[in-house]
Order: sequence, then structure tokens, then C-alpha cells
Amino acid sequence: MKASSYHYKTLKDAPSDTELVSHKLMIRAGMIKPIASGIYSWLPLGLKILRKIENIIREEMNKGGCLEIYMPMVQPKSLWDETGRSDEYGPELLGFKDRGDRDFYLGPTHEEVVTDLARKEINSPKDLPLTLYQIQPKFRDEIRPRFGVMRAREFLMKDAYSFDLDEQSMRDTYSKIKEIYIKIFEKLNLDYRVVNADSGSIGGSSSEEFHVLADSGEDLLAFSDKSDFACNVELIDQDDVEKIPGMDSPDGKGKLDVKRGIEVGHIFQLGNKYSKSMDLKVQDNNEIKYLEMGCYGIGVSRIIAASIEQNHDDKGIIFNKALSPFDLVIVLINQKNDESINLKANHFYEKLNELGIDVLLDDRDCSPGIKFSDAELIGVPYQVILSKNSIESNSYEVVSRSDLSKKLLTEEELFALFS
Amino acid sequence: MKASSYHYKTLKDAPSDTELVSHKLMIRAGMIKPIASGIYSWLPLGLKILRKIENIIREEMNKGGCLEIYMPMVQPKSLWDETGRSDEYGPELLGFKDRGDRDFYLGPTHEEVVTDLARKEINSPKDLPLTLYQIQPKFRDEIRPRFGVMRAREFLMKDAYSFDLDEQSMRDTYSKIKEIYIKIFEKLNLDYRVVNADSGSIGGSSSEEFHVLADSGEDLLAFSDKSDFACNVELIDQDDVEKIPGMDSPDGKGKLDVKRGIEVGHIFQLGNKYSKSMDLKVQDNNEIKYLEMGCYGIGVSRIIAASIEQNHDDKGIIFNKALSPFDLVIVLINQKNDESINLKANHFYEKLNELGIDVLLDDRDCSPGIKFSDAELIGVPYQVILSKNSIESNSYEVVSRSDLSKKLLTEEELFALFS
Repeated sequence: MKASSYHYKTLKDAPSDTELVSHKLMIRAGMIKPIASGIYSWLPLGLKILRKIENIIREEMNKGGCLEIYMPMVQPKSLWDETGRSDEYGPELLGFKDRGDRDFYLGPTHEEVVTDLARKEINSPKDLPLTLYQIQPKFRDEIRPRFGVMRAREFLMKDAYSFDLDEQSMRDTYSKIKEIYIKIFEKLNLDYRVVNADSGSIGGSSSEEFHVLADSGEDLLAFSDKSDFACNVELIDQDDVEKIPGMDSPDGKGKLDVKRGIEVGHIFQLGNKYSKSMDLKVQDNNEIKYLEMGCYGIGVSRIIAASIEQNHDDKGIIFNKALSPFDLVIVLINQKNDESINLKANHFYEKLNELGIDVLLDDRDCSPGIKFSDAELIGVPYQVILSKNSIESNSYEVVSRSDLSKKLLTEEELFALFS
Repeated sequence: MKASSYHYKTLKDAPSDTELVSHKLMIRAGMIKPIASGIYSWLPLGLKILRKIENIIREEMNKGGCLEIYMPMVQPKSLWDETGRSDEYGPELLGFKDRGDRDFYLGPTHEEVVTDLARKEINSPKDLPLTLYQIQPKFRDEIRPRFGVMRAREFLMKDAYSFDLDEQSMRDTYSKIKEIYIKIFEKLNLDYRVVNADSGSIGGSSSEEFHVLADSGEDLLAFSDKSDFACNVELIDQDDVEKIPGMDSPDGKGKLDVKRGIEVGHIFQLGNKYSKSMDLKVQDNNEIKYLEMGCYGIGVSRIIAASIEQNHDDKGIIFNKALSPFDLVIVLINQKNDESINLKANHFYEKLNELGIDVLLDDRDCSPGIKFSDAELIGVPYQVILSKNSIESNSYEVVSRSDLSKKLLTEEELFALFS
């Protein structure tokens, strides 16, 4: 993509009402634009990252045999009355009437809708097991939306729902989807922990959270340095928390450490709560069985913010390749009146595109200083500097965003690096 | 995809409240499932088609230099008050209050939101021209939602908005986007017409519609058999319409014919209506200029219904390759107790996948009759029949969905056909 036709615009300063660094940086980088409290438009740069995350999730969910669907945002209240959640869910559930005076909710989650779908679609044990998922905007009417897309009212979520004939099968599906989640988070290449949501318990868990580690995280996590043991200790007394670091892990393996985390995924064994209240059942031999369900969420838009909380410095965002909107930025120096620079730039651009490298060619008519600081702000893994001098000496400076280390490469070495 | 793990389920009969053939067939084929009046869930088969259309649109919009964004569904009423459309738009505009008693609308279209975005993002003539688009669910509170996804309340739309410095540039952008639309509709491979929305006028038009031709269409179109002349004559007196066929085309080229069409796209030159009311302007030299806008819609979900209205027979849907959820269905005959059939099926499946052919392998445990009629119902371009007999004789029946013609091919000829 050429920057001159990409609406590549950044802000020098973040608005004064931004607290979290990810919120500041996403707005400064031109990824999101607020339209109302907790409601954002995604600009091209931000949407590109969102799509990369979506695609990683979709690919792994599909490989794992989950089927993608798309349920409506607008949900009849009558379904929520069946499960009693019209009363229970609380004021984050935004309700309204249509022109025919019928009651609806703007979907904050889809257990009711998917259970209604399942009772129409699942007629026999032969239809099981079945896991359906969608990647879809959700709305939760937060009382105090803040922190940008970290706690927005309208946000993008991947929600999946599993249906099984019995508890054992439901637990197997849950384990399978946990493995899919691990693959997704490995691909996202973030430092994360899978945390038992039932604080402190070990073994067969009915709910686990996926946390991206970051000092700004809302949750406090205790985990072993030698095993997978991890749990959320956010609700434990502060004095007790201070004693945790260095304690033996409850599973006998290793010592405990405590860090803060941002919850970006949550998987649940729901059992038959929804299937019973909404009469989702099949006949198995001569027995009527209510289906056993699980539900599995990933906060897609939140992952971007969590990634930035984990990886940034005073110059801006540090994205890894999996999340970065581009693989590299080529910064053109004083190209305006020098056709040789533009020719070389186009050659680099086309050659790297052929190699499958997603390049942002910064051909804007502005100072090199702005281009450098913008490249650092948006966090693309590499910058390559292209000037009259670098062409003449066949020596191109390549800057790595993660540690700002620099090396000089010939054109040939440069292509080799990215192929 | 193997049918046994795809929740491949069809209905023998359509619900009694379905009128249009596309509505009946989409429900019978298991593409959509109603949840409330005019509100549907998209099942895997339907969503797959939707994504194919989305991708065709996205590819051409991107090639044409348009930038993809994603604006929120929930829009502050205050923006609509600025343009006066809070009062003008009518009861299809669904409003509600959030928990803080602030007024919002559920987005039926995004002129206000995008103009608000533009006045924050566009600061100088250097930022122009700019065309932004999104592919996003919309909500219009139709008084009488009917005809399935043809006239749903929640539906998927591609909406684009262009910003230019002056009228001439706006008209150039409009023409460019019209060309992009033509490429999109050519790729969708449907019989369509571009129709002047200002009934009867010729030449520079400020609004044109893209119609898919179908006998069930709501609009009546008159068009020349020798030129691009076409206009919407739906509002012309019935007696006059009857006189049109055979008349000379107003542009002097060819004779007129009259057919019915389904509107699936609409492009507008908006001028400065929104930029003036919302104060979207730039300084050009010493002059303040309100930006000239255009808007451009495609009814993504509606295209599926329109395609089916145009192409179906008494056995079901007839999809072309661009829209079809799969390229071919391999129907296995009595494979249950015959490992040689399953082995051959897997060989075919893998080989065709390698060739980039998207195969639905019908390995369900059900009768051949059901498999044939389901394959005809969902409208995949080709069926290949794989039985013990066909393996032994190296002679595979290939059925073309469009004309139900059959031919016998050897395994080698079959792979050649699809490579």
C-alpha cells in the first residue's frame, strides 16, 4: 500500500480524556476514531489489524471443525424471558421497541439466540456434537465506557457455542476448543496465561480465562513457573496476594509468581442451563436428553489493545508480525524531486509484494522526521530507509521496531531477509 | 468440506408464510433461519455465499483505491439532528435510549456518521479525493418485512462514501465507482442492467440503480437492445408501459424492451447536502469549500436472493461458480459398508482440493435420492456420482446443475475438467 493513497494520518497528541496507553496510541496512530462514549469507527489501519486477528481465529476454529454462522444483532426479548435473563442480565442489556411495539435487545451475547437456533436445527443425536461460532459486533451498555476498545460499548467478539449429547462429550468438546484457543493465542504471539476462573481450584475446571499479561491489566494472576497452574487472584485479599510470590505451586510443580493480566478469552462449560430453560433436547434411544452446552468467547477488538498494553515503548506501538498492519514500512527520503528514488521505491515495492511481504511505502510529501516517528508510532516490525545516498552506496538502513537496532544491508541482502 | 461434519440439512417444504421462490429455497436449503419478523440467522451454507459476494466486492473496491473502514451500528441521534434526517427519515429509523438517557439510532445508513468522521479526518485539499466504504449489517424497521432476505430488517450492505473538492472531481469519482460496480456485477455473473433512476432522462445522471433482472422484480425497467440506455419505468402509467416494447430507444440506438428488475445497487451524487449541514469543509487557497460527496450502496445479502430469483428451476437453486457455496458435490452411493468407495472418495476430495476446487463430499448416511435432491436444491454447478459401479468401470456421471445434462467421464477426464 502506498501511504499517499492510504489516508495515513497520525496525531501528535492523544485527546485529554484518554488514560490507557493503548487507547492513546490507537487514536494517535489513526486506528480508531471515537463517535460517542465507548463507540468507535475503525479506520483503515485499525480495521486491517482487526481482520488479521479475525482470520487467525477463523482459520483455527474451522480447522477444529467448528462451523461459522452469523446471528442477528437484534434479538427478541421473548427469548431472554425464557431463560430469565431479561431480569438477571442487568442494565448493560440495551432494550428497545420496534415500530410494532415489540421488545428487542441489542445483542451483548448470543446464548438465547443460538439455543433457539439449535432447538430448530438439532433433531437427533446424529446432529451432535455441533459447535457454531460467529465473529460479530456486540453491544453492552457499560455504565462507564473507557480505555478505548478495551472496554467499549460496541465491540467485536468471536463467540462460539457447543452442543453435546452428554456431560462427558461436552467436556471433551470443551478440551478440544481449549486446544484451539491455545493455537490461536500461540499464533497471535502474545505472552498469555490460561487461568482457572474458579479461584484456586485445581483439576477439571468448568471455566477458564485467557489473559494477555500486561502491567495495566485489571486482573491479578498467580501462576507457576514450572507448570500450567494459573489462577485469577483478583478477588483475594491484598495482604494474602503479597505472600504469593515464591510460594510453592498448589500442584506441587514450581514456585508461584504474580502478574497482572487482561482477559481476552473465556471458555465455559454451561451444562444444560440454557437447554433446559429453552427446551433444547433430543431423543436418544428411549430417553429424552437435554443437550449439554459450552460457550467460548474471544474479545477480538480487545486483543489489539491488550497487545499494545503488552508491547509498546515511549515512541509508540510494537507489533509482532502476526498483528502488525504491515510487515514493513519503506521510508522515502526527499523523493519529491528525485525520480531515481521513486523508481527504486517502486522496484522494492513490487519485488517485496511478489515475495508476499505487505509493504507500506511512505511516499507522502512530508519531512523524513514525521515519517520516522509515524513508522515508530504505528509499530510495524521493520523500517527500511530509502534515500539518494542509500541507492548510490547500495546500502539500506533497516531498523527493527522491537529494539530499534539498525543494520545496513545491500539490496540483495534486503530481499533475502524478507524472503 | 465433508457433508457429515457440515450440518448439511435441508427441509422438504418451505414454511407456509414464504411467498417468493428465493425465500422458500434459501430456507429449504438451510442457508438462513428466521428468528423474528425480517430477522434471520445465517447458517454455514448461506454465510459461505455471503462471504464470496463480500470478497468480490472488497477486491474490486480495494483495486479501485477505496479504503475499507468499519463504522458503528449504534449512532448518536445528535448527528441526525444536524442534517434534519431525525425528522425526515421516517419510522424505518429505529431509535432508543441508552442507560444514560441519551438518544441513539440503529444505523440504517451512514451518511451522518461518515460525514462526522470526514470533518474530523479531512483537513486540507491534500486529503482529497477520498472514498471510504464498509461491509456491515444495517437495520431498517420495515413495516412489513417479507420476502426473506430480499426485504429484511437486519441485512448486510456495502456502503461507500466519496469526498471531493469540487463538483467535477465528484463526478469523476462517481464515474470511477460506477466502473467498479460494473466490474463487481460482471464478476457476480448475473444478468443485470444499470438504470437511470431519474426516469426517462438521458446523459449525465445524478443517480443510477443496478438491477438484477428477474420476473419477480419489484421494478419495471425499459432498456435498449443495442445500447446502454435503460431507465426505471415503475412509476409510469401502465397503459404507457404497454406501448414501450418495440419503441425506438430515446438515444436513437436500437429498440426498447421492458423487463422486471430487483434493485441491488444504487449510486448517488449527493453534492454538498451533508457537507453543508454538517460543516464539512476545507480551505482551498483562500476559499472555503464544502466538500462534494457521493454515496454508493450494494445490498450484499439481497444479491443472493436476487440471484436465486433469476436462476432456479422446480428442483431448486441454480448458482453460477462465482456465487455457489461449493464448486461441486460428490454424491457417494451406498458408501456405508464399502471401504473402496470411501477410499476413492477421499482420493477425489484431496486431489480436487489440491486443484483449488471447493468440494462438498456428501458422505452422509442417507439415501442416494435425498443426496441428489439436496444437491439440486442447493444449486451447486456440478454433481459427480461415485458408486461401486462407477469405480469398477472408471466411468463417473457428471451432472451439470444448469441444464441437468449428464456425461460420463473417466477419473482422468474428470480431473481435467476441473483443472
